[in-house]
Amino acid sequence: MKGAYLDHASATPVRKEALDTMLPYFSEKYGNPSNVYDMGSKIRQVVEEQRAMVADLIGATAAEIIFTSSGAEANNLAIKGVAFARQKKGKHVIVSAIEHHSVLNSARFLERMDFEATFLAVDEFGCVDPNRLAKAITPETVLVSIMHANNEIGTIEPIVELAAVCKEKGIIFHTDAVASVGNTSVDVNELNVDLLSLSGASLGAPKGIGALYFNKKIRLMPLIHGGIQENGRRAGTENVPAIVGLGKAAQLAIKELPEKESHVRRLRDRLVQGILERVEKVTFTGHLVNRLPGHASFCFESVEGEALIFMLAQAGIYTNTGSACASKALKTSPVLGAIGIRADLAQGSTVFTLNARTTKEEIDYVLEALPPVVDRLRSMSPIWGKEMPEYAEDVCH
Amino acid sequence: MKGAYLDHASATPVRKEALDTMLPYFSEKYGNPSNVYDMGSKIRQVVEEQRAMVADLIGATAAEIIFTSSGAEANNLAIKGVAFARQKKGKHVIVSAIEHHSVLNSARFLERMDFEATFLAVDEFGCVDPNRLAKAITPETVLVSIMHANNEIGTIEPIVELAAVCKEKGIIFHTDAVASVGNTSVDVNELNVDLLSLSGASLGAPKGIGALYFNKKIRLMPLIHGGIQENGRRAGTENVPAIVGLGKAAQLAIKELPEKESHVRRLRDRLVQGILERVEKVTFTGHLVNRLPGHASFCFESVEGEALIFMLAQAGIYTNTGSACASKALKTSPVLGAIGIRADLAQGSTVFTLNARTTKEEIDYVLEALPPVVDRLRSMSPIWGKEMPEYAEDVCH
Repeated sequence: MKGAYLDHASATPVRKEALDTMLPYFSEKYGNPSNVYDMGSKIRQVVEEQRAMVADLIGATAAEIIFTSSGAEANNLAIKGVAFARQKKGKHVIVSAIEHHSVLNSARFLERMDFEATFLAVDEFGCVDPNRLAKAITPETVLVSIMHANNEIGTIEPIVELAAVCKEKGIIFHTDAVASVGNTSVDVNELNVDLLSLSGASLGAPKGIGALYFNKKIRLMPLIHGGIQENGRRAGTENVPAIVGLGKAAQLAIKELPEKESHVRRLRDRLVQGILERVEKVTFTGHLVNRLPGHASFCFESVEGEALIFMLAQAGIYTNTGSACASKALKTSPVLGAIGIRADLAQGSTVFTLNARTTKEEIDYVLEALPPVVDRLRSMSPIWGKEMPEYAEDVCH
Repeated sequence: MKGAYLDHASATPVRKEALDTMLPYFSEKYGNPSNVYDMGSKIRQVVEEQRAMVADLIGATAAEIIFTSSGAEANNLAIKGVAFARQKKGKHVIVSAIEHHSVLNSARFLERMDFEATFLAVDEFGCVDPNRLAKAITPETVLVSIMHANNEIGTIEPIVELAAVCKEKGIIFHTDAVASVGNTSVDVNELNVDLLSLSGASLGAPKGIGALYFNKKIRLMPLIHGGIQENGRRAGTENVPAIVGLGKAAQLAIKELPEKESHVRRLRDRLVQGILERVEKVTFTGHLVNRLPGHASFCFESVEGEALIFMLAQAGIYTNTGSACASKALKTSPVLGAIGIRADLAQGSTVFTLNARTTKEEIDYVLEALPPVVDRLRSMSPIWGKEMPEYAEDVCH
């Protein structure tokens, strides 16, 4: 049976090279890096080598990398860690309205801890305006967090300009690059950010590993308190096999990223063009140019996204609605609401994410199988062909 | 060359059965449990099966288990999660003075967040007195956390009595059972605790996985905010391979624990008796009876623990000083300080932890190799044979 797996943003196979490199660290080289004897110090050295490889991928140095258990943990550590460490300076943080839940809900947690949080509006492409950011900054602002790329609509934010606004005012700037690192080139020096989150999964490393880049000058309250692992910034025995997997995947990404980018961009463009040609009343969401190369996102009018995902899966095609929130009936994705997509249209959100092993055959199969599925769902829809109001409605909060 | 690996508390090989069960979940069954389509729902079901197995091991139900990335994270989630969720009721927490750093430092973090923390003294065996706990409770107390067993001196606390004191006063009780689960039987109903932390590593599951048992009636502020994984109590994509490893290890532990306990107790007793017979001026630390079956801990007079660890490692014997703190020159372990061990004697702390695959040959080799190493270190010591002051000095804070 034909098939196409185009949901790499939510899960992707661990790369064989990464898994092979990890395997000895489960049952043979199982030492604890904190141990003083030789078995420990050898493992400690291995961990530090991986740290350097991950740092290399983003233009950082090894001492600026903290390993975490996920991108979500890295985001929580960055936001709460900076906010709590600097709370005597001020209690205001700024994030965009389209951040990942791990950023949005960390900001909401800070509100419960007597911080003030601003959720910055974005334009129709999901972009944060640097002037709008500048205006939102107050003397109380201690942290700004704007994502590098949005997982749901693919838009890459103007981080250089946004970070510059913060630098000028001496405000710490964090970017969630979980959707980007491994999919497009990211360099902390070019971006001039103070902190940056990444996840192993985007790189073909296993689940359960992420990292936070941090400028060493920045004070950070740990999220997980305890022992002195990660220089006292993240307690808990190091997850050595997963760290080794991340290191290997980072090393491979450095070598292969340019080719991967052009490969997925070419196939993505074929997918987008093909869908727009074959399906009527479909809205391409996010920025047209400044977006992740392997990311395509649409809203199909009068189609329920979850039903579309199910029916495509029956045809062996795996895609995503793009948001856990959107999978709940009658709730619109906050991201789609923020870019002004009508609530009914946002129901038809579908996200395709490619990786280096995606083939032209997979894309062509989607182009063949998708239109009749959309037609069938529309033929069952009570609203297909009816006039809908023009305004956007954000009912997800 | 002969050898003995007796540092299973700090690192232990992943069990073959656990690793074999995990392997398909890296690159074949790589779906994300949150996905709505079949690949996702199948993985979600696997995760729920593992949750039930982990629950079974400690007498809980699946819905009472939250997967975390480590025992340290579980401890942080329990302590901060309960304290923050209940802060309107009161801002006082009680922990023992000999808790793991992940508990002690979580309590200290709460102090910085305007909570009050009491660090309960223990007796010479490291036991917390239920009467002392009862006296420390104030109308402001919202949480008590006392570990099930101490990792450094092996002592098992009278949790049933301590939890009963809290139950009577309506105070939430957490126990850190990271050193216990997998090494001795632990049942949340017998103990009558509200929350309990465990770690996969103690069970022969891989690094990077732990769990928190929680009574469903208890409100808990997440430590890692974000998506709705773990019923909204712990965000981040589930670490499926590690969860599968933990599930398998838990299933094996249920079956094998009684035999493991008697095996390691027999060998541990042989080790203790042998050392006490062969080496003069050595103090056995912790409780003599109420202790982990595979745990033996000593302080060797006029011996520097780290030097002993190094020299034993050269002979192929792996043991631990028992505390990262103690590995720093001139600092005494807070645990040994709390049980009244003199600072100079505490420097000679050495901990042996056994597992089911430990052999009589390993123990006998230690009994053969250890005494000459101790003699050699003492012959180089400037304090060996000199009178030392009797008082204990806690210089680790």
